[in-house]
Amino acid sequence: MADYSKKFKELRDIANKLRIDSINATNASNSGHPTSCASMAEIMSVLFFHTMKYKVSEPLHKSNDRFVLSKGHAAPILYSAVAEAGFFPVEDLLNLRKLSSDLEGHPTPRLNFIDVATGSLGQGLSVGCGMAYVGKYFDQAAYRTFVLLGDGECAEGSVWEALNFASFYKLDNLCIICDVNRLGQSGPTSLGHNMDVYRSRFEAFGVNAIVVDGHDVVELAKAFAEAEATKGKPTAIIAKTFKGHGLIGIEDMENWHGKPLGDKAGNIINNLYSQMQNKGPYKLDIPLVVDDAPDVNITNVKLHEPPKYKKGELVATRLAYGTALASIAKSNDRVVALDGDTKNSTFSDKIMSVNPKQHIECFIAEQNLVGVAIGAACRNRSITFASTFATFFTRAFDQIRVAAISMSNTNFVGSHCGVSIGEDGPSQMGLEDLALFRSIPGSTVFYPSDAVSCARAVEFAANTKGICYIRTSRPNTAVLYENTQEFQIGKSLIVKESKQDKVLVIGAGVTLHEALRAAEQLEKSNIKIRVMDLFTVKPIDAESIKKHAEQCNGKIIVVEEHYPQGGVGEAVSSACAMSKFLIKILAVNEVPRSGPPQKLLEKYGIDAGSVVKAVEEIIKL
Amino acid sequence: MADYSKKFKELRDIANKLRIDSINATNASNSGHPTSCASMAEIMSVLFFHTMKYKVSEPLHKSNDRFVLSKGHAAPILYSAVAEAGFFPVEDLLNLRKLSSDLEGHPTPRLNFIDVATGSLGQGLSVGCGMAYVGKYFDQAAYRTFVLLGDGECAEGSVWEALNFASFYKLDNLCIICDVNRLGQSGPTSLGHNMDVYRSRFEAFGVNAIVVDGHDVVELAKAFAEAEATKGKPTAIIAKTFKGHGLIGIEDMENWHGKPLGDKAGNIINNLYSQMQNKGPYKLDIPLVVDDAPDVNITNVKLHEPPKYKKGELVATRLAYGTALASIAKSNDRVVALDGDTKNSTFSDKIMSVNPKQHIECFIAEQNLVGVAIGAACRNRSITFASTFATFFTRAFDQIRVAAISMSNTNFVGSHCGVSIGEDGPSQMGLEDLALFRSIPGSTVFYPSDAVSCARAVEFAANTKGICYIRTSRPNTAVLYENTQEFQIGKSLIVKESKQDKVLVIGAGVTLHEALRAAEQLEKSNIKIRVMDLFTVKPIDAESIKKHAEQCNGKIIVVEEHYPQGGVGEAVSSACAMSKFLIKILAVNEVPRSGPPQKLLEKYGIDAGSVVKAVEEIIKL
Repeated sequence: MADYSKKFKELRDIANKLRIDSINATNASNSGHPTSCASMAEIMSVLFFHTMKYKVSEPLHKSNDRFVLSKGHAAPILYSAVAEAGFFPVEDLLNLRKLSSDLEGHPTPRLNFIDVATGSLGQGLSVGCGMAYVGKYFDQAAYRTFVLLGDGECAEGSVWEALNFASFYKLDNLCIICDVNRLGQSGPTSLGHNMDVYRSRFEAFGVNAIVVDGHDVVELAKAFAEAEATKGKPTAIIAKTFKGHGLIGIEDMENWHGKPLGDKAGNIINNLYSQMQNKGPYKLDIPLVVDDAPDVNITNVKLHEPPKYKKGELVATRLAYGTALASIAKSNDRVVALDGDTKNSTFSDKIMSVNPKQHIECFIAEQNLVGVAIGAACRNRSITFASTFATFFTRAFDQIRVAAISMSNTNFVGSHCGVSIGEDGPSQMGLEDLALFRSIPGSTVFYPSDAVSCARAVEFAANTKGICYIRTSRPNTAVLYENTQEFQIGKSLIVKESKQDKVLVIGAGVTLHEALRAAEQLEKSNIKIRVMDLFTVKPIDAESIKKHAEQCNGKIIVVEEHYPQGGVGEAVSSACAMSKFLIKILAVNEVPRSGPPQKLLEKYGIDAGSVVKAVEEIIKL
Repeated sequence: MADYSKKFKELRDIANKLRIDSINATNASNSGHPTSCASMAEIMSVLFFHTMKYKVSEPLHKSNDRFVLSKGHAAPILYSAVAEAGFFPVEDLLNLRKLSSDLEGHPTPRLNFIDVATGSLGQGLSVGCGMAYVGKYFDQAAYRTFVLLGDGECAEGSVWEALNFASFYKLDNLCIICDVNRLGQSGPTSLGHNMDVYRSRFEAFGVNAIVVDGHDVVELAKAFAEAEATKGKPTAIIAKTFKGHGLIGIEDMENWHGKPLGDKAGNIINNLYSQMQNKGPYKLDIPLVVDDAPDVNITNVKLHEPPKYKKGELVATRLAYGTALASIAKSNDRVVALDGDTKNSTFSDKIMSVNPKQHIECFIAEQNLVGVAIGAACRNRSITFASTFATFFTRAFDQIRVAAISMSNTNFVGSHCGVSIGEDGPSQMGLEDLALFRSIPGSTVFYPSDAVSCARAVEFAANTKGICYIRTSRPNTAVLYENTQEFQIGKSLIVKESKQDKVLVIGAGVTLHEALRAAEQLEKSNIKIRVMDLFTVKPIDAESIKKHAEQCNGKIIVVEEHYPQGGVGEAVSSACAMSKFLIKILAVNEVPRSGPPQKLLEKYGIDAGSVVKAVEEIIKL
């Protein structure tokens, strides 16, 4: 017992050292959130110097415990903790937020000890769920996942989506810590220090909830032990804390969010030092890592067999997606599909015929769906494909944008794009998903127009770094390519051409088939057009577009099932911004109605007839 | 008592008639969700023929009770209920989902009895919260708001954001009904018929929860009465139901989501008819509307006083937003600002100095923030401005896109756009918000570059139909315009010009000031450029851009704080797609880092120096 009491004394000292580090770092950068750090100092001390199992030499080792700082604005204390633990020199903390340093305002994986970026609140728990799911069901390993939430961010619905998921899947290897410091950015949180309400909410969501004094290292250490011992459900340690705790004159005060302490720092640091017996450096004395996570190879994943379609056969690209997904899943058991109760529409359920375990039902909670997919893909433990209706990814735009900052390799598949879904009406039509996914830095956006190219898109996505998006369509459309056709990311294909072509027409998905119909109709009037399939909207094949446009009198028509903004037309326009082409964009210009698919294509001016008319007009110019 | 028993018998008959109507309508359209309708038939019968107060002659009367069908795919039974109540002829139900009919697959306000579109799940409760908030705190009127949720959509976090809001603001005029029919689209929900878990979750979120047999009209009627009598908190009636209830051979079966009954309909309808005593038409016998909602005028709202800035004075546009917001709030007490715990950064808190009641703190829950703003604006009861960091609106893209289908007039204000926010890093930078808001049909996107234009943007937004977005910047920038300057939506301004201009440079916000600095530098080399302020990115002033580009040798440079996709550059490119200009776009091409604002502008190639370089290059072409 004597030993423990010494340990606890040291943990208290470390907590204060982390406070001091955080104050110094934010003062050096003249920005940042020292008070948000101070409330969680004891939590970090106990986690990083007592509870968590990790190798300092390999911060992202496959068998290390995982840690996600969901309240990313408290980055300085995370940096302090790992610096004090020996990840990098403590004096580097003073480079916080400098352009030359990877110690950014909020954590990103530019740092070799960070799995995912945080900073947009309420996202960390979904990611942690993905990590814990993989740990429990795929790796079947001993490592545990810790997610530290702020209380303010518990107002985000995504937190409750994640809790529903965590309890449904009995993620007892997941430990949530909620830092209830009562104060948000601009005032008190909605629940303040009402710990009973937090407890009842977490319990109602199926979690083992433990309320503790978050500044008591003994209570915290006990709670972490209880969490580890609790089976069949995740544990949430709900820590009552005070914002700016230990910072004399500032603790529990409003209007101190996101402010360095400036000239108040000196006295406060002196006071903190005066309470410490051991002023560091600290010796790591933590439990050994159980190195039982299997080695995994997710590179060079191939379709188990090449596509087997007949040219001209009618196959929806959404179905071709499901078929290809199952095929790569057969090749690699770390291919995982996730869906939000739309698996029989997106056809992600096809993977279940290969192995039901390679499918994760995330229910109707797209933010969590995306977060789990991101978490499951961390440390290259799996290749994830998250699918739902294209338009419902708008629900998770924030998660997807942060995934890019996280350098995630998650793949997204959106079905039911455009007005060609028909009678269900505008709320179900993806008409802005290209704007969303194109805007993601480094993303690859596939828009396959037939089953063969869709199969190859899936294969590419499985092997491509960064965010990939595959846009699939609901209607059955003709297979355009031989099964042996080769595709490349960023390389378009010409599906119809002659030396007399007067216009280059670029379609995608359903509208490519409308363009081909238009070409047939126009031939009757002896007008020839060239028809291009981009295959990937991003990267866009600017070189080929320009080459073929030049061969077609510098005239381009783009026809697409998307609103004009951010879609294929704008992609083509900006790719050709330094070329003097005439570009006519046919897109959906208003909120569409319910109706039969073909009638809607006609009504919104993106059917074969509309292409014919546009061609007839542009050739006169 | 005899009377009541007769009434209840009739309510049971009506429920079955609504089932029959729904079966017939979905069979006629050969698509739709009859089983999702059948589970809620008794709920709709009791609501529309017993509990709710409304005028059939004026479906959207200011004092009517409000009803939001959050599970929008059950539209047919809503259409049936209001048709049976006399809103329109019952035989029109057979036009469901036809292109010629407003009875779309999911409800939209094209129908004169619908406030908001639904169909993307989990959104209705936030909207209902906005209606109830206005009813309780602004109108102080008797009308109540009813929101019908599906159980599947309760997995959406937005539902729990809304519940936290509803209980925090004690919305006892809000009644939630949850149709717990156990089955989602592709399988059982995560909670099935576990009514106790539903009860404990709703209770933990501060709601008076009543579990009932959802097919028992007596229990339902009693629960609605209890809801009305319960003060200080909202009530949730959690109804245990069966999907396809009353549809022999289909009730409670999987694989019947979203499928018309086809040739099974005949027998099922005969069976339903055989149970009915009164086969219709039904006489409305509902409590009278208490017509106590005040008349409200939200038209022609003006700044209380014109802007009072000095040319050259340094003012951040985010601060100018707060100042203008307070000014219009002084003119009209139905101007309402909503924020997600960022009010001291967006400066929406300025309105509180006019009247604290005109500000609604929505805490860190952007989906609900947006939903409440949409609900509060319904029936022209208020003019809402929802603000947060620009990038956090990505969290609510789905709500915003549906707001356009809802024909909402909600205004959005996003601060902290671009890399010029500096040290906080990429998770806090708005770099895709223009792609988001430009893609919204009918939206107006303001991007003011100084305080005077920002003030006028706020005034325009208050009076403009459709979704408005104002993008504001964090840094202080010089006032460019006289206070008397006139602005127009869709009309750009030239801030620097001469007859020798060689290039048209379009900047916005901070980059407009960089462009002006570039112009000064270039003048030293005797190179003149024209500098344009678009004021609105959408609608874009295509005419002026073309006119000035022609006067500048057909050369345009766009410089913007946004990713290239969907931003100002693509807006300009597509506006000029049919003109043969050279357009060079300077935008942020990768995930940025933390650092000082000016250094980031330089690093990402959108500062004055980058403009100078681009001009020097383009004039050689």
